[in-house]
Amino acid sequence: MSTVGKPIICKAAVCWGAGQPLKVEEVEVAPPKANEVRIKILYTGICHTDEYTRSGKDPEGLFPVILGHEGGGVVESVGEGVTSVSVGDHVIPLYTAECRECKFCKSGKTNLCGKVRTTQGQGLMPDGTHRFTCKGQPIHHFMGTSTFSQYTVVAEVSVVAVNKSAPLEKVCLLGCGITTAWGAVVKQQGIKGSNVAVFGCGAIGLGVLSTASIVGASRVIAVDTNPGKESWARKMGATEFINPMALPEGKRIQDHLVEITDGGLDFTFDATGNVHVMRAALESCHKGWGVSTVIGVAAAGQEISTRPFQLVTGRTWRGTAFGGVKGRTELPGLVEDYLQGKLKIDEYVTHHRKFAEINDGFHDMHGGDCIRCVVDMTE
Amino acid sequence: MSTVGKPIICKAAVCWGAGQPLKVEEVEVAPPKANEVRIKILYTGICHTDEYTRSGKDPEGLFPVILGHEGGGVVESVGEGVTSVSVGDHVIPLYTAECRECKFCKSGKTNLCGKVRTTQGQGLMPDGTHRFTCKGQPIHHFMGTSTFSQYTVVAEVSVVAVNKSAPLEKVCLLGCGITTAWGAVVKQQGIKGSNVAVFGCGAIGLGVLSTASIVGASRVIAVDTNPGKESWARKMGATEFINPMALPEGKRIQDHLVEITDGGLDFTFDATGNVHVMRAALESCHKGWGVSTVIGVAAAGQEISTRPFQLVTGRTWRGTAFGGVKGRTELPGLVEDYLQGKLKIDEYVTHHRKFAEINDGFHDMHGGDCIRCVVDMTE
Repeated sequence: MSTVGKPIICKAAVCWGAGQPLKVEEVEVAPPKANEVRIKILYTGICHTDEYTRSGKDPEGLFPVILGHEGGGVVESVGEGVTSVSVGDHVIPLYTAECRECKFCKSGKTNLCGKVRTTQGQGLMPDGTHRFTCKGQPIHHFMGTSTFSQYTVVAEVSVVAVNKSAPLEKVCLLGCGITTAWGAVVKQQGIKGSNVAVFGCGAIGLGVLSTASIVGASRVIAVDTNPGKESWARKMGATEFINPMALPEGKRIQDHLVEITDGGLDFTFDATGNVHVMRAALESCHKGWGVSTVIGVAAAGQEISTRPFQLVTGRTWRGTAFGGVKGRTELPGLVEDYLQGKLKIDEYVTHHRKFAEINDGFHDMHGGDCIRCVVDMTE
Repeated sequence: MSTVGKPIICKAAVCWGAGQPLKVEEVEVAPPKANEVRIKILYTGICHTDEYTRSGKDPEGLFPVILGHEGGGVVESVGEGVTSVSVGDHVIPLYTAECRECKFCKSGKTNLCGKVRTTQGQGLMPDGTHRFTCKGQPIHHFMGTSTFSQYTVVAEVSVVAVNKSAPLEKVCLLGCGITTAWGAVVKQQGIKGSNVAVFGCGAIGLGVLSTASIVGASRVIAVDTNPGKESWARKMGATEFINPMALPEGKRIQDHLVEITDGGLDFTFDATGNVHVMRAALESCHKGWGVSTVIGVAAAGQEISTRPFQLVTGRTWRGTAFGGVKGRTELPGLVEDYLQGKLKIDEYVTHHRKFAEINDGFHDMHGGDCIRCVVDMTE
């Protein structure tokens, strides 16, 4: 019996309140309205941003909510006017939409689309309503994706179809971490032949150093306080690994890096979300031309700081969201790159969980041996 | 009688200690050693950096010292090996050297030359000695230029010859402020057709908005807390003037600018040296692509800060010293531009002083009606 046009009852992991564990519940998922797409989610990654909101540290977090933003699935049905994806397409939801019509999309300068930004931040669909109901209560959407549900509804501008021959349990990770890392490097001119340092060896940091290595950076220095990350970093392409905690007492990582690189790095990337590390990353840059990119998301209220002299003497401080990637335009190509062996994804998947174990997946993430945990939503 | 190879006795404004007024003294200026040039200074501007060191606020300030770094003069004699300037050449001393041999000069990415940096910071010539003596004491050099002396000695890499038909009482200002402002704009891609805001309407700020106007910025918003600067700003090319103190109470300048520009500026420039203004300049930038350039030099120990979200959502924070201009290569062209009416200089000279009145020139600078005071070193 077709589910098209009807509500679907399925399982979703609901977070009922700040700091609470997720609870797998029976939810009702309304059919997609105009310009919306209902997706059967098959796999989802767990990312630190999900945990940040779950923990209650995000002051903009809304509850109850269905988290998750790194998913892969199949289009179950589409609302009126949807043309870019069809029933049965393999798709990846996009927390960074791409409408191709707004000032941002048309600028040619940024991937930050303004189309659904406001309602997405309010945990709503673009028309200002919810599609999830649980125990008679409306449940908030999250980042326009809510992939911790067996079915989710997203705006058409927030989803992209990809090659069906790609395994969704792998390419779902293109929904956030790996794409972010890839874009942060390839959209930065001049990496080839340059010295690069990457602060933080989680999925993003490893993705950055892997991409920098592939692009042809001459030196790729991985920095992490967890010595267990060294083998990971080297496997992914780092030429050196430095543990800031292992430096002589009082020696700052930025001073050490400036010393061993004859003046500093050409490019540095922060993939920690720690504002002190962001400063160290900037100050590790070479005078005159070093560029430091903030990728990590800091906790609310925290600020970065430095002496302005750092900038006046030629360092640049910038940032990137979703790696500067336009999801609908660029993700299909990334999937092809993966299929052709040009882009690593499999290497990042260290843990697997059944849907019922999703809270264990969050625990996995906190372990130093976990890069990414992929949850099978069908089990 | 030729002075070549001999010490010259002349007048110089000596600052004997932090916070003291300058004192015009008789000094002895040793002849130039190898790769050095002795210059008869005819005119010099007074810049806030001179005052910063004089005041004692600069923790790296050295005393006694002969300040001044915005000068114009004639080559009196040259040391062994000097080939790029000759006796009688009209020259401008350069506090940002250009050796064309160091890692920085060869990089093609920066104007910050490393050749004489260390000794310059120590108030010495490149061989580690002084050329100035007064009352039997060695007197420190300043910024490699020391233009507050009727004769000064500089490294060959720190001086450039310019067209003799240009009036030195005007083009001396290319030694700092006007060149800095010009370079900050023309070396930034994309100004044409963009919205620009300039914080601070001193010589640098006016130069920035003038250049932005000439380059073809569509909107040039001048920001200054001194309402008296409005007419200056408009005369130099500003399309709008905003006094942050005149905004409704509690309204921040960055929020106001974002509102009136439909999301923020494409480019902003800080020409105040105030770290709070630097932050406002960054946060006035448009999400996704706005670029903020720090030009002003902040007081020692002060720091800039912002939420990293500002960068992650696509704003870039950078800085520039001497406008990114390579003095020996580019200043001759700027002088030609001036002679052809393409570059404003005359408009900046609001005050003139005889050498004996140099302290009055410092007082002039603090007045809201002064853009630049030029001192005639021959009077």
